[in-house]
Amino acid sequence: MQERGLKICIGQVDVTPGQPAVNTSKMLDVIAGAKRDGADLVVFPEMIIPGYIIGDMWERPDFLEDCEACGEKIIAASEGLTIAFGNIKTVPRYNNEDGRVRKYNSCYIAQKGQLVTIVTKTLQPNYREFDDNRHFYDKRKQLVDAYLKMSLTNEHVSMKFRKHGFEGEEINQAIFSFVGWMDKAYKPIEVNGLKLGFLLCEDSWDTDYTFSPIDILAPKCDVVFNLSCSPFTMGKNNKRNRIFSEKAIRHKTPIVYVNNVGIQNNGKTIYTFDGNSCIYDCKGKIKIPFDNFEEADTTIFLNIDEEFEHSDQQIEGVEILHESLHYGIKKFTEQLGIKRVVIGASGGIDSAVVAALFSEVISPKNLYLVNMPSQFNSQTTKDLAKDLANNLGCNYNVIPIGSSIELTRRQLQDQGFEVDSFTFENIQARDRSARVLAAISASVGGVFTCNANKSEITVGYTTLYGDLSGFASPIGDLFKTQVYELGEYINRINSHPVIPKEIFHIKPSAELSGDQNIDKGMGDPLKYEYHDKLFWSWIERWERATPCDILQWYIDGVLEKELNIEFSIVDTYFKGDKQFFIDDLERWWNLYDGFAYAKRIQSPPIFCVSRRSFGFDLRESQTKPFYSQKYCKLKKEIIK
Amino acid sequence: MQERGLKICIGQVDVTPGQPAVNTSKMLDVIAGAKRDGADLVVFPEMIIPGYIIGDMWERPDFLEDCEACGEKIIAASEGLTIAFGNIKTVPRYNNEDGRVRKYNSCYIAQKGQLVTIVTKTLQPNYREFDDNRHFYDKRKQLVDAYLKMSLTNEHVSMKFRKHGFEGEEINQAIFSFVGWMDKAYKPIEVNGLKLGFLLCEDSWDTDYTFSPIDILAPKCDVVFNLSCSPFTMGKNNKRNRIFSEKAIRHKTPIVYVNNVGIQNNGKTIYTFDGNSCIYDCKGKIKIPFDNFEEADTTIFLNIDEEFEHSDQQIEGVEILHESLHYGIKKFTEQLGIKRVVIGASGGIDSAVVAALFSEVISPKNLYLVNMPSQFNSQTTKDLAKDLANNLGCNYNVIPIGSSIELTRRQLQDQGFEVDSFTFENIQARDRSARVLAAISASVGGVFTCNANKSEITVGYTTLYGDLSGFASPIGDLFKTQVYELGEYINRINSHPVIPKEIFHIKPSAELSGDQNIDKGMGDPLKYEYHDKLFWSWIERWERATPCDILQWYIDGVLEKELNIEFSIVDTYFKGDKQFFIDDLERWWNLYDGFAYAKRIQSPPIFCVSRRSFGFDLRESQTKPFYSQKYCKLKKEIIK
Repeated sequence: MQERGLKICIGQVDVTPGQPAVNTSKMLDVIAGAKRDGADLVVFPEMIIPGYIIGDMWERPDFLEDCEACGEKIIAASEGLTIAFGNIKTVPRYNNEDGRVRKYNSCYIAQKGQLVTIVTKTLQPNYREFDDNRHFYDKRKQLVDAYLKMSLTNEHVSMKFRKHGFEGEEINQAIFSFVGWMDKAYKPIEVNGLKLGFLLCEDSWDTDYTFSPIDILAPKCDVVFNLSCSPFTMGKNNKRNRIFSEKAIRHKTPIVYVNNVGIQNNGKTIYTFDGNSCIYDCKGKIKIPFDNFEEADTTIFLNIDEEFEHSDQQIEGVEILHESLHYGIKKFTEQLGIKRVVIGASGGIDSAVVAALFSEVISPKNLYLVNMPSQFNSQTTKDLAKDLANNLGCNYNVIPIGSSIELTRRQLQDQGFEVDSFTFENIQARDRSARVLAAISASVGGVFTCNANKSEITVGYTTLYGDLSGFASPIGDLFKTQVYELGEYINRINSHPVIPKEIFHIKPSAELSGDQNIDKGMGDPLKYEYHDKLFWSWIERWERATPCDILQWYIDGVLEKELNIEFSIVDTYFKGDKQFFIDDLERWWNLYDGFAYAKRIQSPPIFCVSRRSFGFDLRESQTKPFYSQKYCKLKKEIIK
Repeated sequence: MQERGLKICIGQVDVTPGQPAVNTSKMLDVIAGAKRDGADLVVFPEMIIPGYIIGDMWERPDFLEDCEACGEKIIAASEGLTIAFGNIKTVPRYNNEDGRVRKYNSCYIAQKGQLVTIVTKTLQPNYREFDDNRHFYDKRKQLVDAYLKMSLTNEHVSMKFRKHGFEGEEINQAIFSFVGWMDKAYKPIEVNGLKLGFLLCEDSWDTDYTFSPIDILAPKCDVVFNLSCSPFTMGKNNKRNRIFSEKAIRHKTPIVYVNNVGIQNNGKTIYTFDGNSCIYDCKGKIKIPFDNFEEADTTIFLNIDEEFEHSDQQIEGVEILHESLHYGIKKFTEQLGIKRVVIGASGGIDSAVVAALFSEVISPKNLYLVNMPSQFNSQTTKDLAKDLANNLGCNYNVIPIGSSIELTRRQLQDQGFEVDSFTFENIQARDRSARVLAAISASVGGVFTCNANKSEITVGYTTLYGDLSGFASPIGDLFKTQVYELGEYINRINSHPVIPKEIFHIKPSAELSGDQNIDKGMGDPLKYEYHDKLFWSWIERWERATPCDILQWYIDGVLEKELNIEFSIVDTYFKGDKQFFIDDLERWWNLYDGFAYAKRIQSPPIFCVSRRSFGFDLRESQTKPFYSQKYCKLKKEIIK
């Protein structure tokens, strides 16, 4: 028997958000290559022409016009093969519910230089970074409108319906042939005698929706293609594999997942795209033909009856974390045209990891490590900062801040302002970033980095305009324990020394006062192996925990299990002191749910790697810290 | 004939977002007062128990539990009268499309201590600051699900529907009695023999929706109540009056609009709520019984047949702008517990207006004006800053930055870093804010303000960690010309001198270099009377303009008309030089659509007064400035 299949080119391209002409030119190159290789089909990701995470650019009519005109060029290039690609579709005669032109997130399918059909996205994500309903029309609303028409005779209303996308026969059609509409919306395209189905992203990730486009389409198809624009998050590929494998098995239909690479941002949060395009056979086994975070457009033969011997493994843990950050930093500095990078090197782990990451993408001569000691900095950390710079072979400067902070103290005191120890700590932090690093960056025509980690950002253990400033926050989505793990990984994969070993062993400390003397073993007030997991439960856990949950777990004796830490950690830290446990919980919750957010509002962009990063991913409001009635009850129970 | 009507208490209360217990206690007081006054009905605004703009707090189960438990207390208080109020409603056995518990934005109506009915919000705004679909379920999706059920026999899918909110009979019911569902969803409640309808916010602002709850409900009612949580924006009340008056006339039904006061924020943007609760008679005339931005809960008799002699006028223009900012600043400082405020006083208009605004809510002894001259500051502005402080009677300090900026220059040069003029300008700006103002704020236990205006923020004519820093940006939503207008207004309404007159006449300048010498008439590169309107068209105009629109208007000779400025302004500025016109356009667009956004990401919260303020209201992405194909074509046409 002859193999059933077709030659497909998966266009795992690097999309430039907001630049349709750039993306289109790249797509035309891919199509030309596919034609040379005799491909039957080229599939590009969702929103490959406009980009996806582009803020409110969707409100610019001439941008939309360009996207659709670029789409026409791709359609025209479909002589001799089939092309599927994501793009925006506007319907100028109808409006969105914001009063602007109606827009659909669409998959275009073209053959013989002509548009064959458009499949619009029905399931629209509105969680995390996604704002689909803000911009794209939901087909389901249109259907309700049609049904409502049945029961409305009022002439005014009837006129409104016509104005909004329904005309005489359409209304009846919608009402009486719902099944017909569905069939029309989700029907396969024939290529090489095979029935191919095309869906956008969430229309196959239907777990939490009542309506499932893939369950309607797949039974009619020999193979289903999913066009996505899906940002990288730790663990997300495995979740997709579970969902897609299950779909492939249930429908006995292979699924091809097509995702782009590149980076996109919503300002506060920068997302990397790993591609990870892959094929699920009808038994749910997975083949990942390309490397993560790499453009790919080789044409392969898709044998739709083939069963893979094994599933390709996803790269996981610190390895993929490193890949995402490396890629994100590389692409982001490229996109902003950044040539020189300045890093405040304290001798601690955070700045060391940030420096190591940047040294992978910026040449040593353009990388500036700056140590800015005050009287509170130990010789230990000063030496370690120098060792780090030596290891990286980059520029190294020492600019003491003593005279400047003393000048500030004196100027304030001369005017009658008291400068207490805490004020003096913050003066130091701001002096380093806003005075020295910012000036050096301007001088060399570069930028400086923010080295704050997620543990610190969560509770505002950073100084605004001090260590919380910088052009971007490369490790702002990593808890302190993850920073150590990443540092160790970087040392492991390099044959030459990168991060001096001693940096892993000194006590983490801000070194802003005598109370933070690392040589005396003094430092940060955070017990990272406990607090990291506590904070994780507030932010990244799917059902995000609140103090109420924490107390309930504590009472039930399952806190360590829920936080996924050793029993001994909580025990050693609190020694069974319930009041201390509660005080500690409230201390950090008050900061996280209170003042720390005031700092996050003004913090730099963060590279997202987790299931929930600060910024547009986790949306917040400056309110007073909230404790529920149940929390107060549990607290009383524990303390009494 | 006896007057048809009822005694109503409009609960125009000040909501504290995220604090259900606080809001509930206030509501119980209002209810007790209403009972004393013999009210038949108390109506509170939308989401009065939880607050509305609270970020992702909706994801906290114990917060939701508290809100619903508080709601029970309000319901129990309805002995002897009818109560309508907004609150969240969860349906734990079904899920939202993000996988979390299903939530409805709901209006609860209670009588005799019992819940009578719940009306959920169907039309959900997802524009500007609104994220309704992110959190609240849209009833229309549920209906589509029901209809889909008809065409799906697959057991798996059918199970899913049951899981998601439909049970045996419900499915058939939904399918076969759509009209029945609507009737049930939108039916009046009887009080005093009158039929009262209740709707939430957008369900009456239906202009851009195909489905109109008010058009279904109003014909069955003697009066319709609209419960809103509607942030203040210049001109919005007049828009609402047009829509609501038209509805009242069409349905010959009076409408009572109930809105809260207070402030709510989504971090980057702070919204004030003016209340502006009002009554529309059946001829569309308007009575506004309470003051804007004031709590009110007096019981009034609503004669539903009464026709008002005239419509009450809305307060508009600079007067309401001032009220909103005054109220916002007062409430925000109160909420954050801010007692002392430090303001960098340059002698220019921006800091003068900010100081004048804060002097209205902070006592002179807690207000610190600080002048920080360098060699580039003129005696003129130094004197004006002092005059301002004298007028306000507040603290005044002069802290020269000369030694500090020279120290920075020297420290950099000693290490081989060049300090050019531009670098030196930014060193000055950061020295003032991040060194001096931040330290003084910490010393006095207060905060310092950001005095940047919208013209500057639009194109990044500000220094990050310099004049763009501060705890909040009170005039960040006002273009420079509006700042002058507000300053003049403040002087007009005060009997004592506030802003020294000369401040209105000096050339606006940053005074950061010899090229910005105001005594020589040199200063900002912005021609505010033109650029303010240009920027307005990019940001606040409903159909936001792009460079493409600007060129088209320029070609068509309608630019001045579209920007609403005098013909002479464009003519005087560009003198018919087309190349200059285009260079100027691209210069500012490149900044607005490029680097300026990098600064906005890290800018302080802005008090929103306009139709579109920076932050979560206008969502952006760091991309390269975009010019469409059509723009390039028009540009060629103009230049050739």
